[in-house]
Amino acid sequence: MEIQTELERRRTEIEAVLEQYLPKEEGYQKTVLEAMNYSILAGGKRLRPMLMMETYRMFGGSSRIIEPFAAAIEMIHTYSLIHDDLPAMDNDEYRRGRKTTHMVYGEAMGILAGDALLNYAYETAAEAFSMEPENPAVGRAFRFLAKKAGVYGMVGGQVVDVESEGTGRISRDKLNVIYRLKTGALIEAAMGTGAILAGASEAEFLNIEACAQEIGLAFQIQDDILDVTSTLEVLGKPVGSDVKNQKATYVSMEGIQKAEKDAGRLFCSAMARIPEDTFLQELLCYLMHREK
Amino acid sequence: MEIQTELERRRTEIEAVLEQYLPKEEGYQKTVLEAMNYSILAGGKRLRPMLMMETYRMFGGSSRIIEPFAAAIEMIHTYSLIHDDLPAMDNDEYRRGRKTTHMVYGEAMGILAGDALLNYAYETAAEAFSMEPENPAVGRAFRFLAKKAGVYGMVGGQVVDVESEGTGRISRDKLNVIYRLKTGALIEAAMGTGAILAGASEAEFLNIEACAQEIGLAFQIQDDILDVTSTLEVLGKPVGSDVKNQKATYVSMEGIQKAEKDAGRLFCSAMARIPEDTFLQELLCYLMHREK
Repeated sequence: MEIQTELERRRTEIEAVLEQYLPKEEGYQKTVLEAMNYSILAGGKRLRPMLMMETYRMFGGSSRIIEPFAAAIEMIHTYSLIHDDLPAMDNDEYRRGRKTTHMVYGEAMGILAGDALLNYAYETAAEAFSMEPENPAVGRAFRFLAKKAGVYGMVGGQVVDVESEGTGRISRDKLNVIYRLKTGALIEAAMGTGAILAGASEAEFLNIEACAQEIGLAFQIQDDILDVTSTLEVLGKPVGSDVKNQKATYVSMEGIQKAEKDAGRLFCSAMARIPEDTFLQELLCYLMHREK
Repeated sequence: MEIQTELERRRTEIEAVLEQYLPKEEGYQKTVLEAMNYSILAGGKRLRPMLMMETYRMFGGSSRIIEPFAAAIEMIHTYSLIHDDLPAMDNDEYRRGRKTTHMVYGEAMGILAGDALLNYAYETAAEAFSMEPENPAVGRAFRFLAKKAGVYGMVGGQVVDVESEGTGRISRDKLNVIYRLKTGALIEAAMGTGAILAGASEAEFLNIEACAQEIGLAFQIQDDILDVTSTLEVLGKPVGSDVKNQKATYVSMEGIQKAEKDAGRLFCSAMARIPEDTFLQELLCYLMHREK
């Protein structure tokens, strides 16, 4: 498939940007620097930096100011995975077929590597201030990214999710909050930051923010659906884990038919907000209709 | 003592600034917002924001641009305490006579409250970009603060300290790195950020950075000395804990006489870098000669 070749090309491009910003593994802090890089280099789709860069391009952005932000959002995503995997949280030993950070480096170093990576994300994004010290969009983009990553964004979603665990059924309202914040907030951060840095107007920004919200929710409903309808072979991880863990999902609460209908509706609405024949539209379309 | 009244007045001023930036305890994330505020409001000397504000004033700074940064550095300091106290780290149940964050809210929430607070520190400092969007000093101050808080600053020192534990004797070089980074880096951040925001020249900035390094090290040697020479009644916490924990300190490595001489030398050098009759000099003098 041609889109896959194109995706791979852009993923390689993003990994080159990331590598440029990764810290050198040297000095007395060598262990934590290794742990940070171990986690970042574990792979993944690089979805967030890709959405950021493609939104930036769609609005006509063409400078390297986007690069520190693209690296930063992947670092934020990665630190959240390191801390999610800790024994006191999800207690996961493997991720993407590799041992999790705390399994390799110990629990204390897992905590510190996550802290270091979150902090380093902001050190990295702040490089943009030295690139364009008098561009007020940089400060605006920074504030948007930081807010979406924090207690009113991703961390907030994580908190509500942790608190809801083992409580049996949760309200639809609460499920929406978890979906909107835990994963949705970084999708919004990616697309919103790209738009701000490219100089999008306020109306364009609000439109792309709404688009990101719809897309974020559609992706998560789609994940819930695949957990029920896919197979181990296709998905590359056990299916039915949500049912097994008695996890409240969009599918368990609304049924599979309504879930499919709602995901489709959200996706269509999001698509209508983006100009046709853009790579961003093609990318979102591909991600929505993936089988895993 | 008059200086104590003055200190108390400024501490109250800083707490008012902090409260202004603290998140409201409402919404679905209420628990983590409570945990964040519980930790921040546990008290303390507010040393770092105080040093930041006094350095800012000494260089003639007089706007409110310093306030979000002062709040941010206290949040960074506080998050580091929350994570330090976790079971996988120092496993402390009490701090300043109150239960530690994870003892009250659980371990998962302790991790998340620390993450949320670190992130919120940068959200808060970034408020300065909306206050003065075209002031390039804000970006410079931000970068300096973030670097000193991260893997090349405070977190890096924490990592070296954790790795050195239980290894018996460590090298003088390594002890210097721990002292310089673990506590020293945030003293540098405080004074350096204050200087940058007040528009200090490059030479003035380098001078104040050197001053902060000397002061940071002098304070820590002084702490080591007090742990040996003070009493439970004066210090308000058990003395001799370093010896009991077989912790390598400046005193255990160099002996008490050399430690006192070096601390005095560092302090005098630092004092000579600051104009006389400033409150900053008076403040540092008071902090150095405290008995606890």
